Amino acid sequence: MNRFGKVSEKGREMAASVSLDAIENSGISPKDIGYTFVSNAFGIAERQAHLGPLINTALGIPEVPSCTIESACSSSSAALHEAFVHIAGGFIDAALVVGVEKLSHLETLAATSYFAMGADYAFESRNGATFPGLYATLASAHLKKYGTKQEELGAIAVKNHLNASNNPHAHFQKPISMETYLNSPTISWPLKLYDCCPFSDGASALVVVNAAKFKKDIKGQPAAIRASARAGSIAALQDRTDLTAIPASRTAADKALKQAKMERKDINFMEVHDCFTIAEVLAMEDMGFFPKGAAAKAAAEGVTAHDGKLAVNPSGGLKAKGHPVSATGAAQIVEIMEQFAGKAGKREVPHATVGLAHNVGATGGSCSVHILQKV
Amino acid sequence: MNRFGKVSEKGREMAASVSLDAIENSGISPKDIGYTFVSNAFGIAERQAHLGPLINTALGIPEVPSCTIESACSSSSAALHEAFVHIAGGFIDAALVVGVEKLSHLETLAATSYFAMGADYAFESRNGATFPGLYATLASAHLKKYGTKQEELGAIAVKNHLNASNNPHAHFQKPISMETYLNSPTISWPLKLYDCCPFSDGASALVVVNAAKFKKDIKGQPAAIRASARAGSIAALQDRTDLTAIPASRTAADKALKQAKMERKDINFMEVHDCFTIAEVLAMEDMGFFPKGAAAKAAAEGVTAHDGKLAVNPSGGLKAKGHPVSATGAAQIVEIMEQFAGKAGKREVPHATVGLAHNVGATGGSCSVHILQKV
Repeated sequence: MNRFGKVSEKGREMAASVSLDAIENSGISPKDIGYTFVSNAFGIAERQAHLGPLINTALGIPEVPSCTIESACSSSSAALHEAFVHIAGGFIDAALVVGVEKLSHLETLAATSYFAMGADYAFESRNGATFPGLYATLASAHLKKYGTKQEELGAIAVKNHLNASNNPHAHFQKPISMETYLNSPTISWPLKLYDCCPFSDGASALVVVNAAKFKKDIKGQPAAIRASARAGSIAALQDRTDLTAIPASRTAADKALKQAKMERKDINFMEVHDCFTIAEVLAMEDMGFFPKGAAAKAAAEGVTAHDGKLAVNPSGGLKAKGHPVSATGAAQIVEIMEQFAGKAGKREVPHATVGLAHNVGATGGSCSVHILQKV
Repeated sequence: MNRFGKVSEKGREMAASVSLDAIENSGISPKDIGYTFVSNAFGIAERQAHLGPLINTALGIPEVPSCTIESACSSSSAALHEAFVHIAGGFIDAALVVGVEKLSHLETLAATSYFAMGADYAFESRNGATFPGLYATLASAHLKKYGTKQEELGAIAVKNHLNASNNPHAHFQKPISMETYLNSPTISWPLKLYDCCPFSDGASALVVVNAAKFKKDIKGQPAAIRASARAGSIAALQDRTDLTAIPASRTAADKALKQAKMERKDINFMEVHDCFTIAEVLAMEDMGFFPKGAAAKAAAEGVTAHDGKLAVNPSGGLKAKGHPVSATGAAQIVEIMEQFAGKAGKREVPHATVGLAHNVGATGGSCSVHILQKV
């Protein structure tokens, strides 16, 4: 992955660049790639759809088939799922997964409006709802039902900014204090500025292979995909019976743990979808790692610090590492790989051997959960 | 599929409607669907991405995972490929594939500009190239190298409009004469108005199942997917060594025939990608059904009429049935299914048992070939 933030390159350039890096680091050759799965939900902001053939042409493999996979903010984890299915099903031996987003050349209002296309246009976005407002709705319901406190949300922001300060890929690389958090302006109550992830440009790429076929070629520290699971839930907030949970997170996590033949206690650490601090709370609770109402308190107590009992978002998360929509899911996997490789420096998760990645589309219409094991 | 043309419903409404029809006609229940693959390349023209959860919510199956697959004009055949891989690989038992496009609410120039996003922005679209111009480049090279005649391209237009006049799903339902064709204005030499497909709205849906699991449920006339193959070729025209062929068509067709264990003579009829008449010529030649330079002449001689030796585009093709980008690939399969079911009326292909669908993304950066057999 590149450093998330304001990137001057075009999306296609970033995508080709991280793809080449991923292939070189993997030890395989571009010619081994059987399919390229691209994610680039808002490529049309650069007037460019059909990105796969451009990337493959840049890699010198124009004959390789490709497609672009969109599932709002869970686009590149959905792409990884397709790569997994193609390889585990025996259809190809190796795949390239590449997620890229570039929106910083737009005005903030235009960028917000692109993001909002992930919500339900007819019933949400058309009426003025944007993601800060939609997640604030989930947050206020959580505060009311479980007594979650502003300082507890703040503790998540402080933790994730600290982790990002030790991550050279992160958009934000400065720690923040609780005071800074509490003094920041309210964006949509109860969410403050530092509860919200930034708009970021960025790209991330993964090489997925049938390990048996490339035993001699694989370089560096590989990981086994122990589970690749996806689920959905009701798209629009207005149609849901409960605003304090995202059912797709529970369904996808249950599927993934069953597929991996693991229990929750087997997971060392996780990268979860924290587009807003409340989203990290929901992820930890909905996936069943904490009882409902307990996750924010646990974060405030340091349980989820990078060296805590269950590290959550050692990368800094979407919150502070940044959130280039279609690059996010693959970037979560990059963090897990770097932890396994012992390359995470001061944000290291001690004894990291099993990592979980949780990536949500919009307010929970889609969710992907992957479990990786160091091999 | 619905009737292609100017459709007043929103994309999401069309998509849910054809999906319900497909599921009802298939005999399975919505609850059997394991994954929903949507195609909607230009959904953002309606400010709506992340369409899967909306469709699944409308179908009463919000828990089912979904994603949107884009490969320019070959989007829904790429989606069908994912459904095939998921089912043939044993990951799910049934999938919904639904393609939808709605652009008629835009000005023509805006719609053209959306379409052009499938080309290479930096080197083609930004410099003013749109698809009529890009395909005219391919056509003029073909005319020069092989002596292809305007009247031979015209014969394809006349044939496809005749077929469409017998297809209740078609955008255009009136036959045209060669005189009408020849008198129509030049859009981009040598392509005349009637060489070009229209902008259409439309939606089409397919239900794909593991036949062994649903033996008792399947209604109507099913077909076996004997092959599902995809390939790519160099994206931008400027980077190609030959402008008279699309390599991805040859690669995908070879892969598909090998997968199906069939020879070209086993194919009864085909739906091919004729966004422009020249594209039908290229498809027939590049897939190896006619020698280079011979396809247009064969069409003029009636060989590819719906009751000819090798029927091509009995539906009327993109040319006259219409081309709602992301609905096109799935609609080609609908035509093959209707031919197998004996529901094609006056456009019937006699003794149709094996049909091939060929769907190109942009000017050939992507290509999908599917082979279906009546069972």
